[in-house]
Amino acid sequence: MTLPAAVRLVEVGPRDGLQNEPGSIPLAERIALVDGLSAAGFRHIEVGSFVSARWVPQMAGCAEVLSGISRQPGVTYAVLTPNLRGFEAAVAAGASEVAIFAAASEAFSLRNINCSIRASLDRFEPLMLAAKGLGMRVRGYVSCALGCPYEGNVSASQVASVAHALYAMGCYEVSLGDTIGTGTPGATRRLIGQVAKQVPREHLAGHFHDTYGQALANIYASLLEGLSVFDTSVAGLGGCPYAKGASGNVASEDVLYMLDGLGIATGVDRQRLLQAGQRICQVLGRANASRVARALQVLPAPQPTHPNG
Amino acid sequence: MTLPAAVRLVEVGPRDGLQNEPGSIPLAERIALVDGLSAAGFRHIEVGSFVSARWVPQMAGCAEVLSGISRQPGVTYAVLTPNLRGFEAAVAAGASEVAIFAAASEAFSLRNINCSIRASLDRFEPLMLAAKGLGMRVRGYVSCALGCPYEGNVSASQVASVAHALYAMGCYEVSLGDTIGTGTPGATRRLIGQVAKQVPREHLAGHFHDTYGQALANIYASLLEGLSVFDTSVAGLGGCPYAKGASGNVASEDVLYMLDGLGIATGVDRQRLLQAGQRICQVLGRANASRVARALQVLPAPQPTHPNG
Repeated sequence: MTLPAAVRLVEVGPRDGLQNEPGSIPLAERIALVDGLSAAGFRHIEVGSFVSARWVPQMAGCAEVLSGISRQPGVTYAVLTPNLRGFEAAVAAGASEVAIFAAASEAFSLRNINCSIRASLDRFEPLMLAAKGLGMRVRGYVSCALGCPYEGNVSASQVASVAHALYAMGCYEVSLGDTIGTGTPGATRRLIGQVAKQVPREHLAGHFHDTYGQALANIYASLLEGLSVFDTSVAGLGGCPYAKGASGNVASEDVLYMLDGLGIATGVDRQRLLQAGQRICQVLGRANASRVARALQVLPAPQPTHPNG
Repeated sequence: MTLPAAVRLVEVGPRDGLQNEPGSIPLAERIALVDGLSAAGFRHIEVGSFVSARWVPQMAGCAEVLSGISRQPGVTYAVLTPNLRGFEAAVAAGASEVAIFAAASEAFSLRNINCSIRASLDRFEPLMLAAKGLGMRVRGYVSCALGCPYEGNVSASQVASVAHALYAMGCYEVSLGDTIGTGTPGATRRLIGQVAKQVPREHLAGHFHDTYGQALANIYASLLEGLSVFDTSVAGLGGCPYAKGASGNVASEDVLYMLDGLGIATGVDRQRLLQAGQRICQVLGRANASRVARALQVLPAPQPTHPNG
């Protein structure tokens, strides 16, 4: 099978990462993070979300982040928007594009946003209409694509149906999210095969969590299935709300290491990415969840060890 | 491509894991670890090594470990042996089989065991002769198969040549070791393709380190190349002597999670494996390096979070 020559990495650390980190982060550091990521070469960065600060206090001040960053030509600064009001705020703040979301699991939809999948999709219709009027691109997320914390298994056909609904509404790309990280490579390949019957592969992205250590294997499996867009989070920011202390979003550094090794172009510079990750980890006072960062930033001079060390 | 229906996991935690852990572990705990692993279903366990206690103090008392364990029928209790003296001690202590080793990198061989690759292979001739005389099986390791801490890249043809030398000497299986964890899936597949020209795939095993987070992707890549034997270490015991604080041997729990998800039989029970891993981590006073262990053993009741969490 032929792997793609290039991959677009969608850096979600400033949004999906930080929204799950405890404590508040100074606006200046959120701005520095986004600028550090564009300087590292990312061309698609999810900057934040326009959701209620009551629900997600970490994302308050997203407009200030958007106005404070040093915008680079060719970089998409995306934000997550739950409804028309959020969309209008995103537009006013100068977001390049917006993202909407739906769950593939009814139980998750009900517990997470208090409505059925169908109702959650219907609620986005006014937003999609407004976006179309402005010619603004909208990206879609499907959560629980490889498992649900409440229902367990989620059928690939159900994921395909929700992905298709988002695509049919006008999302130019649909990102399949393994929200709880329980996917494995075979399930990932079957999922993509099923979804691709309803949404062309070139309009699909993979969003993997590393909670059970499977993310890179799943990304490699996705590459073999023809996907070439992946969401990643610098320093593995985000953790997992369903398993405290566990890993969440796959670390951008680790994905980049694999793609570099595979000879797949991303435009991202490893050293600059490592710098951005170390800085935000210092601000948050947390360990860097990227294995590449841990291995490279503490590398001592090699020492002789012992047989077969 | 067809994946194997079953995989043999060679649990190397009691040897390759513990030899790289600081501090000394009570003999009773080394025995309990081996017994916990056989109870979990492993049928191939590397119990320790008969090397000089001056070089590897953690492995002193290997004979006592072998005499203290509760031997289970059908389980291979292997030990690493650097020379004929170690081999004779292993036989006297009742090891089921032994393992020998060579590096694929001249620089690593010189710095690690103070002789050339060729000389290191020649030194094993008397051991192989003695093993043949006793009808004892010998397994071979090739270290630095996907990179060397001193030389950097190591050519696949050089790895193939060393693997073939071990096979030709009489090793029934040759395990290809990514000693520093710098391998990625494409390089892994090319390596296996190259080595398989000289050693049949059914006589090859994969030994991956997770230093850069690539191990599971590499194992999945190896499965696609027809490998069905992998060395793993409970709780990711071992660390990496070339990157302090970084991950080393891939965690058995994480590999098992992927194989379970792929529907590949191993005979290993996840819960019992988790128990064995938690126990030895408590003894060592270290964090569990398995992501599966971290996710499952601290799992709180699921809580509603926030949009697209």
